[in-house]
Amino acid sequence: MNTTMRWGGWGDPDRAATLSDSIRGLLGQALGVEAPGAPIPADLPLEPCRIPADVLALLGDVSTSHADRLSHLRGKSTPDLLRIRSGDAADAPDAVARPDSHQGVLDLLAVAVEHRLAVVPFGGGTSVVGGLVADREGFAGVLAVDLSRMSRLVSLDPVSRTATFEPGVRGPEAERLLAEHGFTLGHFPQSFEYATLGGFAATRSSGQSSAGYGRFDELVVALRAATPTGTIEAGRAPRSAAGPDLRQLLLGSEGAFGILTELTVRIRPVPEVRHYEAWTFEDFSEGTAAMRAVAQDGPAPTVLRLSDEYETAIGLSRPGALGSGAGGCQLLIGFEGTADDVAARQSLAADRLRALGGEPLGTGPGDAWAAGRFAAPYLRDALLDAGALVETLETAGFWSTLPTVYETVREALVDALVEQDTPPLVLCHISHVYPTGASLYFTVTAAQGPDPLAQWDAAKRAASDALAAAGATITHHHAIGRDHKPWYADEVGPLGVAVLRAVKSTLDPTGILNPGVLIP
Amino acid sequence: MNTTMRWGGWGDPDRAATLSDSIRGLLGQALGVEAPGAPIPADLPLEPCRIPADVLALLGDVSTSHADRLSHLRGKSTPDLLRIRSGDAADAPDAVARPDSHQGVLDLLAVAVEHRLAVVPFGGGTSVVGGLVADREGFAGVLAVDLSRMSRLVSLDPVSRTATFEPGVRGPEAERLLAEHGFTLGHFPQSFEYATLGGFAATRSSGQSSAGYGRFDELVVALRAATPTGTIEAGRAPRSAAGPDLRQLLLGSEGAFGILTELTVRIRPVPEVRHYEAWTFEDFSEGTAAMRAVAQDGPAPTVLRLSDEYETAIGLSRPGALGSGAGGCQLLIGFEGTADDVAARQSLAADRLRALGGEPLGTGPGDAWAAGRFAAPYLRDALLDAGALVETLETAGFWSTLPTVYETVREALVDALVEQDTPPLVLCHISHVYPTGASLYFTVTAAQGPDPLAQWDAAKRAASDALAAAGATITHHHAIGRDHKPWYADEVGPLGVAVLRAVKSTLDPTGILNPGVLIP
Repeated sequence: MNTTMRWGGWGDPDRAATLSDSIRGLLGQALGVEAPGAPIPADLPLEPCRIPADVLALLGDVSTSHADRLSHLRGKSTPDLLRIRSGDAADAPDAVARPDSHQGVLDLLAVAVEHRLAVVPFGGGTSVVGGLVADREGFAGVLAVDLSRMSRLVSLDPVSRTATFEPGVRGPEAERLLAEHGFTLGHFPQSFEYATLGGFAATRSSGQSSAGYGRFDELVVALRAATPTGTIEAGRAPRSAAGPDLRQLLLGSEGAFGILTELTVRIRPVPEVRHYEAWTFEDFSEGTAAMRAVAQDGPAPTVLRLSDEYETAIGLSRPGALGSGAGGCQLLIGFEGTADDVAARQSLAADRLRALGGEPLGTGPGDAWAAGRFAAPYLRDALLDAGALVETLETAGFWSTLPTVYETVREALVDALVEQDTPPLVLCHISHVYPTGASLYFTVTAAQGPDPLAQWDAAKRAASDALAAAGATITHHHAIGRDHKPWYADEVGPLGVAVLRAVKSTLDPTGILNPGVLIP
Repeated sequence: MNTTMRWGGWGDPDRAATLSDSIRGLLGQALGVEAPGAPIPADLPLEPCRIPADVLALLGDVSTSHADRLSHLRGKSTPDLLRIRSGDAADAPDAVARPDSHQGVLDLLAVAVEHRLAVVPFGGGTSVVGGLVADREGFAGVLAVDLSRMSRLVSLDPVSRTATFEPGVRGPEAERLLAEHGFTLGHFPQSFEYATLGGFAATRSSGQSSAGYGRFDELVVALRAATPTGTIEAGRAPRSAAGPDLRQLLLGSEGAFGILTELTVRIRPVPEVRHYEAWTFEDFSEGTAAMRAVAQDGPAPTVLRLSDEYETAIGLSRPGALGSGAGGCQLLIGFEGTADDVAARQSLAADRLRALGGEPLGTGPGDAWAAGRFAAPYLRDALLDAGALVETLETAGFWSTLPTVYETVREALVDALVEQDTPPLVLCHISHVYPTGASLYFTVTAAQGPDPLAQWDAAKRAASDALAAAGATITHHHAIGRDHKPWYADEVGPLGVAVLRAVKSTLDPTGILNPGVLIP
């Protein structure tokens, strides 16, 4: 695998997706897609670097090359990709620094404070919420701090089952390093192949196996961050009653409070067996009830994912077979562990699902899902090429509120796009469950209108208003960035905002860290 | 049960413990206890209330009665009880207010800001870390805000399995209210019979069934607090990626950031079956390894508790049978749930424990433990009467550090008390486990010296220094209060302290909330 992320789209260019005839047919017939979308340009011109040479000389390993600046331009949301396709590179950093130690990060921050540089911590560059775009006004330049040189496994404690990593290690490399010792982290979000552990922590990432392994914020037992006012560390024990949990203040801080330089995470033995199977339910309501029963009463699965009728019909759960879906609602359930344990849980779950109306579909769809689980972003690039607008959004709420959240968000998305003469396909699945609630993940596809950025913006605003009105959170695992700030401000309230600003002022008094991101 | 807490000791006077001859013999022979300790005085004189009548008139339901002020004097640590026995009532609040609503608390706080009253939120009054003693200097008076009138079950959501409570509801009443709907909270700390849900949240309490039900900070899914600058709320979903988790900033805030006025907690169906059984291991090291295996690889127990050789020998796990212990180390394991599920887990656990060197002792010791699980504080009063000094302390760390923490804390306690010519009995158990670590809970008994307060202070300081040097946390479930502040400051570091102060300044700019508690 080519590990360098393509700057104009997702991932490794050699793995680019092509659309099948059935998908092309669907785009034309169901969505009215007629003309191709704007292509990815061969190159983008950049403004000259604004950071003076004498300041650059203070930044250690730093690059102002065109290629480096372009590859640190924004994240990977559909709006980010549309801006590239429209030729807009205005947000590119002026330079890219690559520190190789905690002290190196502290030194960089000191220079940034003195010379008024906005600092954007950069891990895998996979943000989908504008988390990598800093305010430029009032700054002498924007410096991306690329953490790829800080990607070591610092230590591993097999007794406590913890491992300490530097923040720049990507998902596959972390798994490779742990596997040498017989362990796994078990954190597999869709961005897994490119995203870093520091990014997982800074954005409260949740992986596809979160039912079994937990969210990333549950996996972090200790952390260290470099801030403009010094070093902050937290986590002397798995849990403590020593005041507020400061780990949980730095997790989700999106580079606005400090740069995470070390993370100690819970690890587990590599499972003997991985078993994924699918079930079908008559409708989303019946499937949701079954899913809730498993989440609340067990047996605890490792993966649990329920597609609504639309997503099941379109077969998006199997990107390689789009358009070949079925009726009802498909539930995917997976178990990992020892052979005995997986067999016992699988059997108990089968009894429970059958009693709640489920029909087994066997392991075929489960294995297909597992094989294609990181492929969807490649498909998006191909759909954008073909003239479709495609984007996702997600939320979470308590079980009793989810039906309302589902209905109103779906309706808001449909209405907002129908109003623009681009009736969409809106698909949804539940992919992260808790005893008290779950997340909803929507995928929206429509024909690109004349101004696809404004088109999506209207739909996203309508959906965000709807989920907030229903009492759900603006994001379950994508974070706030710049895109979610208005709803975030409302969600935490004026006192919550005041608290965040007070913490920010303490750790970053001159406001150089990711300005414009997270803090309303 | 008499639900009014005895002001001079623990709990219901009708349930006072008496010491058996075997305990009295042990005190004399093993510890050199000769003379009885200072008794609980029949009454204590109080300074006149300092709050002027015109200010009192603004406080709604408020009392300055001798009985009310005395019953809100400090918490229930051994030093607190020794101060009472020495006739020291200097920390009594000037008045006790009893608000009955969130708005009522906001109104009280406004009066307190305007008239410079120090405010001590008061739930069950069971703090053992000085969490109920406010700085008096610079204040016109100290006002205890007793939350006993705010003890309602506000709502219950059986679908999401959550319940919303006011903060002043005590453990047994919360369980009674939930049981009417077929649910349980499952939070059973030793203080259960008197402590309140607000107190559990403010101190990050952990119950004896934490292995199965989780710590209280894991049970809270949403909360509301009244602060001098307004209302703050958090928790729209079980989990969210919307910035730092502000719930975790208010949990453990010990009344220094605000007064919790509403808590939404996770609830579970009342278990069909509760099964507790005991096992014996050759030594603490073997028992700890077995305990870790169960904590890391399952099957998940509801209760898991391992006594060291000393605690096993003394039989403190069965307060009614003190002195009748045995050799080796006793492990208690409990399962709650459906009959099938309990049977399955019990059988798997038995296989695992046997393979790791355990010998089964049957359900007798388990049932005895369950019957006496809230009785230890009664025993302490009787021991203090008899002239013994008895107190507990606790910590937590990662599994690989626990042996060092155990050895060095034990040694520090023994050395510090031997140096004072009062060689102690030091007992220890592990009673809260996580995949990555566990807590250690020490019980120390010695003959009272001439100045038992100074005597314990020296032992506690030595133990706290030792556990901090070994890298453990200053408290796993007792909180910071006033007693742990020096070690807490070191644990969170200067930047952590600065963050806490910044949050405090934002929510409580005039510093009226529990001044002197928590914030270093």
